[in-house]
Amino acid sequence: MSNERFALGIDYGTESGRVVVIRVRNGEEIASAVIPYLDGVIDERLPQGPRLGPDWALQNPQDYLRVIEKGVPKALKAAGVKGPDVIGIGTDFTASTPLPTTRDGTPLCFLAEYRKRPHAWVKLWKHHAAQPEANQINEVGRERNEDFIQAYGGKYSSEWFFSKVLQVLNEDPEIYDAAERFIEGADWIVWQLTGEEKRNTCTAGYKGMWIRGKGFPSDEFFRTLHPRLEDVIDTKVGMDFYPLGQKAGGLTAFWARKTGLREGTPVSIGNVDAHVAVPACTVTQPGTLVMIMGTSICHMVLGEVRQAVEGMCGTVEDGIVPGRWGFEAGQSAVGDIFAWFFAHGVPDYIHREARKLKVPFAAALEKRAAALKPGESGLLALDWWNGNRSVLVDVDLTGVLLGFTLATKAGEIYRALIEATAFGTRTIIEAFESKGVEVKTLVACGGLPEKNQLLMQIFADVTGREIKLAEQLQTCSALGAAMHGAVAAGRAGGGYDTIGEAAKHMAHVQKLTYRPKAQNHAVYNQLFREYHTLHDYFGRGGNDVMKRLKALRRQIVEQQ
Amino acid sequence: MSNERFALGIDYGTESGRVVVIRVRNGEEIASAVIPYLDGVIDERLPQGPRLGPDWALQNPQDYLRVIEKGVPKALKAAGVKGPDVIGIGTDFTASTPLPTTRDGTPLCFLAEYRKRPHAWVKLWKHHAAQPEANQINEVGRERNEDFIQAYGGKYSSEWFFSKVLQVLNEDPEIYDAAERFIEGADWIVWQLTGEEKRNTCTAGYKGMWIRGKGFPSDEFFRTLHPRLEDVIDTKVGMDFYPLGQKAGGLTAFWARKTGLREGTPVSIGNVDAHVAVPACTVTQPGTLVMIMGTSICHMVLGEVRQAVEGMCGTVEDGIVPGRWGFEAGQSAVGDIFAWFFAHGVPDYIHREARKLKVPFAAALEKRAAALKPGESGLLALDWWNGNRSVLVDVDLTGVLLGFTLATKAGEIYRALIEATAFGTRTIIEAFESKGVEVKTLVACGGLPEKNQLLMQIFADVTGREIKLAEQLQTCSALGAAMHGAVAAGRAGGGYDTIGEAAKHMAHVQKLTYRPKAQNHAVYNQLFREYHTLHDYFGRGGNDVMKRLKALRRQIVEQQ
Repeated sequence: MSNERFALGIDYGTESGRVVVIRVRNGEEIASAVIPYLDGVIDERLPQGPRLGPDWALQNPQDYLRVIEKGVPKALKAAGVKGPDVIGIGTDFTASTPLPTTRDGTPLCFLAEYRKRPHAWVKLWKHHAAQPEANQINEVGRERNEDFIQAYGGKYSSEWFFSKVLQVLNEDPEIYDAAERFIEGADWIVWQLTGEEKRNTCTAGYKGMWIRGKGFPSDEFFRTLHPRLEDVIDTKVGMDFYPLGQKAGGLTAFWARKTGLREGTPVSIGNVDAHVAVPACTVTQPGTLVMIMGTSICHMVLGEVRQAVEGMCGTVEDGIVPGRWGFEAGQSAVGDIFAWFFAHGVPDYIHREARKLKVPFAAALEKRAAALKPGESGLLALDWWNGNRSVLVDVDLTGVLLGFTLATKAGEIYRALIEATAFGTRTIIEAFESKGVEVKTLVACGGLPEKNQLLMQIFADVTGREIKLAEQLQTCSALGAAMHGAVAAGRAGGGYDTIGEAAKHMAHVQKLTYRPKAQNHAVYNQLFREYHTLHDYFGRGGNDVMKRLKALRRQIVEQQ
Repeated sequence: MSNERFALGIDYGTESGRVVVIRVRNGEEIASAVIPYLDGVIDERLPQGPRLGPDWALQNPQDYLRVIEKGVPKALKAAGVKGPDVIGIGTDFTASTPLPTTRDGTPLCFLAEYRKRPHAWVKLWKHHAAQPEANQINEVGRERNEDFIQAYGGKYSSEWFFSKVLQVLNEDPEIYDAAERFIEGADWIVWQLTGEEKRNTCTAGYKGMWIRGKGFPSDEFFRTLHPRLEDVIDTKVGMDFYPLGQKAGGLTAFWARKTGLREGTPVSIGNVDAHVAVPACTVTQPGTLVMIMGTSICHMVLGEVRQAVEGMCGTVEDGIVPGRWGFEAGQSAVGDIFAWFFAHGVPDYIHREARKLKVPFAAALEKRAAALKPGESGLLALDWWNGNRSVLVDVDLTGVLLGFTLATKAGEIYRALIEATAFGTRTIIEAFESKGVEVKTLVACGGLPEKNQLLMQIFADVTGREIKLAEQLQTCSALGAAMHGAVAAGRAGGGYDTIGEAAKHMAHVQKLTYRPKAQNHAVYNQLFREYHTLHDYFGRGGNDVMKRLKALRRQIVEQQ
């Protein structure tokens, strides 16, 4: 292996971190190591500390460091690769996952005086307790017609950076004062590896209101939110952001010693798990939509120019690939809907059939669903079990099933649910194309495509587009991180000069693709028109029954 | 028992006949005998005969005779009652259940030459193969603005008399020719018992286009349907109809010998199972709605004057009780929806819970549903699993569930289904009251009220009305038949002169009643408004998606 060069990808997920060793020449994954976070998702009480409120979700940054300390040596060993043969390191992170630190990057929760204060810890992306702050941000943003409102498709989320920062200030101003920095985990981990506080354009753009060439909203905006927030950018965030693929710095001596890697090994600017997957799916040019399909779906596509597309999670220049506008949309529940149905909607006869066929019950269900033709069930669903992210951006919408008869069977309902999620994706594609952002083909990665052939065929039939699968379906974020590591090294360092070049060599799609069947597509065009009518009726104010039912429900539950 | 007098009720159901022995003085049921039909519902092939088409449902009249031959002696014996102590006999029948006979009442299917001809047999109420004929009848009826169209709430059903007669003529004209009579089973059985062909006003009015004082539509109407139908009334049906409660004749010597009853025992004019239940529920005056609650619900109420109420199954003078207008409405699936959910929607955890609690799974489900408050589930359903009978009269409507989240549980869905059926009943009540037909309280009978306290409380809460239960919940048609037997005997014969008098003594309600809870009613008023909006949107042309999905489904299935 002496002539071979390798890149490391470190992928920070919700429950664990994954380190992969990738061959730079062809993107082959040589080995990987998964290190679970010891404290996992902290959503009930702090370790040896107080109970948390509902909707809280924290993490311990110590767990992030442990992924490097344990995971890198383990992966290298499994790969039979020596540290000096690693030419670059890339990372990717969940987002928005900010933490408060001191000026030198020490997390406040590492300090004895703050470790029992919940606001001193990392707020994980799925911390949902900052909704009042998000509401206020949207109100003020809309009143002042701030640019970020449009970039985010009309709404700033409670999951994002400033909602969480404002919650710290509202609920624990002492922690807010003590925080000399608020920083995304994506940037904090790069700071740890290199000693350089260099923040990335991706989280800044998608989660942090930052717009290239314009920077942040004015101090006046922040002052309107809260008088003490006025100088948050100057004092705790900064104005410098670095585009993806750049080298943030070299690996510190400390971490070189801990891991066996060479001191000074180039480390890439931080990145986000979903966004880094795009080049790992071979996509560095406009025209191809990447779908990261799991419990939810992230839809990512590149465009030549800025466009205000309805319901975007974000529209960011250089946000995915340098030199392009990166558009991100999403469906808030996909795999989650199927998991819900598996838990709550599968009757006895499916379980009996599965036992008879000696297969998991999900397979028995899929067999029945697959035996149906489009339109045969007579059912139609709206896939809003967890609200609607794109294009309606409305968490108060709920799911619908329509078309029941006394002959309706479980396999039919399952198929209708799959079809509804595909209609949701088609709605997003049509929103893109209505604004001139082309979507010619699709590439999928994530956990769902591997498990579910029927689902993939239905997505192809409904969208009328070929769907390719990333070769590394489930680890394409880690591959994308390693690709950025190779770019940080540059050609001179044994890597590549651009992410496009890296993708050409390191990213691949499988031979298996899903092509739309013309006959099915024709029927789905009819069904999609029906979906679209219901979508607009319930989603655009034709009948706000879902919101009223949710409000009534809240009121009833609160009375108890 | 020498001074006691008894009446017999013979109740002809779909699968069996029931004979009850009732004490005339107080309506007490002394004993009963259930005789299953040997040929049951004939829906696949004739006994030793050809296969039947889809949607066919026939019966063998021999089974009706066997109920008398076997059931009467068995019930008398069980009651310890001697034949001569029976002062009167009443019957009730499913409807419309017509058969072709010779002039002397012999069913054509009893004749060797016709027994292999499906059209020679009894067409059971749920024979659904005459839809083309029903469509033609409605078309012609509407063009000519015939009175029956309004009496039937805008639509004549494929289940009814002339749809079935026209199907015979269209498909087997030889049988049509051979039929010297077409007669309802309700009237045929009375003919057998008494030797008198005396037809009743109830089936004639509710199923046969007959209107008191006006008779049938003109010969021209029938000629427009089919040239050979022109003289169907004159030659095969007749113009004489007798009001309910009258004596049709005395029991023949033949049947007296077979049963041990006295020759000449008064036999009442025939009646229909649902309609005869009304006085058995104590109702002989306007203001109280009777609900016969089972797989479906029949709603019956009396009025002072004729009113065109939307979506009636029928509006007939003297149709339920002499001297009143009888209004009949219905929901085409109620218990059937719950049975569907039990078969297709109950997940594993409910079965596990039931095993743990050592109760049937339906009880575990009801326990969860009962623990919820109105509005707590956030769900809303349209109860159209089998179309909508009243008030929309549209078989192509389908069921809806709306409000799903990832937290939705099976108990919540079950409760939403119950609530939807209650909203369906409230819609019918509001249709009555909007036309001045008062509904102050409700009386329920049938199989559902006994099994399901939660359902009854929800019906009371949703309708905002007290619901009483008939004492003989499951056998109130048979009691009603016996009451008519007592009226046929008259006071002089040891019975009563009017059905009102009979009801006063023989019919009772239980002490248990369901009273609406004000707080629940208030929430259900809100939910009912939402139901009403969806009802009109999907049911009155706002969005005909259900019909288009059904049409698409038919097209797909036919291509296979």
